[in-house]
Amino acid sequence: MLNNEMVGLGKKRSVIREIFEYGNQRAKVVGKENIFDFSIGNPNVPAPDSVARAIEEIAQMDPVAVHGYTSAQGAEGVRQAMADDLNRRFGTDYGAHNFYMTCGAAASLTICLKALTASPEDEFLIFAPYFPEYQVFIQNGAGAKCVVIPAQIEDFQINFPVLEKSITPHTKGVLVNSPNNPSGVVYSNETMQKLADLLEEKSAEYGHPIYLISDEPYREIIYDGQAVPFIAPMYRNTLVCYSYSKSLSMPGERIGYILVPDSVEAFEDVYAAICGAGRVLGYVCAPALFQMVAAKCAGQTADLSVYETNRKLLLDGLRSFGYTCVAPGGAFYLFPRTLEPDAATFCECAKKYDLLLVPGDGFGVPGHMRVSYCVQTETIQRALPLFEKLAREYHAI
Amino acid sequence: MLNNEMVGLGKKRSVIREIFEYGNQRAKVVGKENIFDFSIGNPNVPAPDSVARAIEEIAQMDPVAVHGYTSAQGAEGVRQAMADDLNRRFGTDYGAHNFYMTCGAAASLTICLKALTASPEDEFLIFAPYFPEYQVFIQNGAGAKCVVIPAQIEDFQINFPVLEKSITPHTKGVLVNSPNNPSGVVYSNETMQKLADLLEEKSAEYGHPIYLISDEPYREIIYDGQAVPFIAPMYRNTLVCYSYSKSLSMPGERIGYILVPDSVEAFEDVYAAICGAGRVLGYVCAPALFQMVAAKCAGQTADLSVYETNRKLLLDGLRSFGYTCVAPGGAFYLFPRTLEPDAATFCECAKKYDLLLVPGDGFGVPGHMRVSYCVQTETIQRALPLFEKLAREYHAI
Repeated sequence: MLNNEMVGLGKKRSVIREIFEYGNQRAKVVGKENIFDFSIGNPNVPAPDSVARAIEEIAQMDPVAVHGYTSAQGAEGVRQAMADDLNRRFGTDYGAHNFYMTCGAAASLTICLKALTASPEDEFLIFAPYFPEYQVFIQNGAGAKCVVIPAQIEDFQINFPVLEKSITPHTKGVLVNSPNNPSGVVYSNETMQKLADLLEEKSAEYGHPIYLISDEPYREIIYDGQAVPFIAPMYRNTLVCYSYSKSLSMPGERIGYILVPDSVEAFEDVYAAICGAGRVLGYVCAPALFQMVAAKCAGQTADLSVYETNRKLLLDGLRSFGYTCVAPGGAFYLFPRTLEPDAATFCECAKKYDLLLVPGDGFGVPGHMRVSYCVQTETIQRALPLFEKLAREYHAI
Repeated sequence: MLNNEMVGLGKKRSVIREIFEYGNQRAKVVGKENIFDFSIGNPNVPAPDSVARAIEEIAQMDPVAVHGYTSAQGAEGVRQAMADDLNRRFGTDYGAHNFYMTCGAAASLTICLKALTASPEDEFLIFAPYFPEYQVFIQNGAGAKCVVIPAQIEDFQINFPVLEKSITPHTKGVLVNSPNNPSGVVYSNETMQKLADLLEEKSAEYGHPIYLISDEPYREIIYDGQAVPFIAPMYRNTLVCYSYSKSLSMPGERIGYILVPDSVEAFEDVYAAICGAGRVLGYVCAPALFQMVAAKCAGQTADLSVYETNRKLLLDGLRSFGYTCVAPGGAFYLFPRTLEPDAATFCECAKKYDLLLVPGDGFGVPGHMRVSYCVQTETIQRALPLFEKLAREYHAI
């Protein structure tokens, strides 16, 4: 008599959560410091000081103004601050009217998908490896079909021949996530341009826009002085889903936005559909105080140098023990191949050393594992000899 | 090619929002102080000082702990604080496991409705006058049917003969809102008991639970030393949807909860379905800092004496000018009859005096109007002579 789909989704713990809970139990036996938990993507770097300062400043203001409802799309001044930040950094020309503030990236995605889905035949394409909740948002949330493009495991860039064959008259949108969770890979400028060209061509062929939904929570977490290509100006029918969870290290506060550029076909209808979808899903407005915090801190980041240190340490270490791994350009994940084809068995074996790793199957790529390095650097230093022992067990070295 | 239902919902401004925007435009002509805007339910009473103190205290804590993800159902300590507060006030015996923290009452409702709806045949009953978004949440959100029980306009209590006839084998739930928006009426203990008995009887008759969804954002805003009957212990299959928007005057911060008592049939499945629905709708967790604020301030309220003053002033004034109005026991709305049958025409006429009132039609009760008195007392004092002039125009006095 209940919605069994919801019961199922509520009861089925994610693999990541299972491992996390195992770690909590195991910590009671061997001590928290002896658990090497690489399973969770919860930033360990504190929010920049400017966040605490912003909160304290705002808390001094008129509480009626601070804590009142904002308009459903977000306070106008806040949206203008979002526009100013992107315009300054990417030479764009957005205004407040291009933004819709949300309760974080998951809300940005569920709202966009609901706004665009006109029929259960509609298809959204995602690229393996992908964030597992994408399937839930597309299938169970929007009621559309989720089509997975298999991974190009040499470099985790886009497999264009397969993508091209997978676009059909039912393709409503393509979802990209660069820097990527779980691979850390950043799509190159060339990849992005090729994707834009293909979508433009296919939109013309089928006589309707194919939307590019760009999920960009890791946009500011990049290494080696690289720049993440900003896709929106490259393809006119792009919707950007952003969140301050990772850049400002405040994932619990649920603050982000949807950017709808003027170039999007039928802009007014698309923006209205987003407002309608937000309303239907019960999002009255994004949290008011943190809208202001985001406006004050837009464009800043937490201190990312720890991640850079961790990345080098872990990547160099794993490679020296015989692990194969694409070098990540951003985010805080490695996605190496496991030393045996069955990732679940391999990750189970790693537990003997209290190394907690996530099998790649849930991300759509068997034979790989996600290693989340948003941990203390010391944790990595102490874990490396264990990764080495694990490799020796598999005769990798 | 878009979701036209969402486009429509996004473009159709609510009547309340239309009036509010009209007021903004008109203020530019006659000055803000000469607009008497009784259209909006945005609390004008500041949050209690304890809210600002709590925010400042929390901002001093470890930012990684403060701003990190909580579990999807909310931090355990926060949920325990919610339980302790209700247990202390209502003599109940709830635990942390009975609570699911949400982004406010709208999220509580959309999540519950999604969790319960198993088929498009499922029906949810609402009582006129009702909060207009209920229809959106039930029909467009959960994809169920919304059945309206007409108002009993003498006292806005429940019309039981009609309710009884309206319960069918398809009835999945009944939604109540007491103290009520827009009437301000509080369901009496007798009404609540009668409702519980009827639902118990009908659940037995049809062989499945009929859930009572109790939307209680105004639970603490009550007058004359009255107590709002707490329905959950009176009917075992009750789900309580709560929000701190009104009690703590922080509607923009989006913090509330769903209470699922142990007595609910198939408790584990219902709670799981709520977790699943929250996941599908994109609610990762309720805002973390305000979860802690709610825990620290649970059971407190903003200073409600202004509302009490406003209520008396406005109710006495309107009645003395010949308006008929049920005395509200709580919330901050009056819902008087308009002085002509067509409420829209009447409210249009009131605009001549710069009195901004909301026609009752959108709340399911023609011939009435909502007068929101969460305004400055002085606004009411200066508006009363205008209400009098309006009444004279209609020869009411």
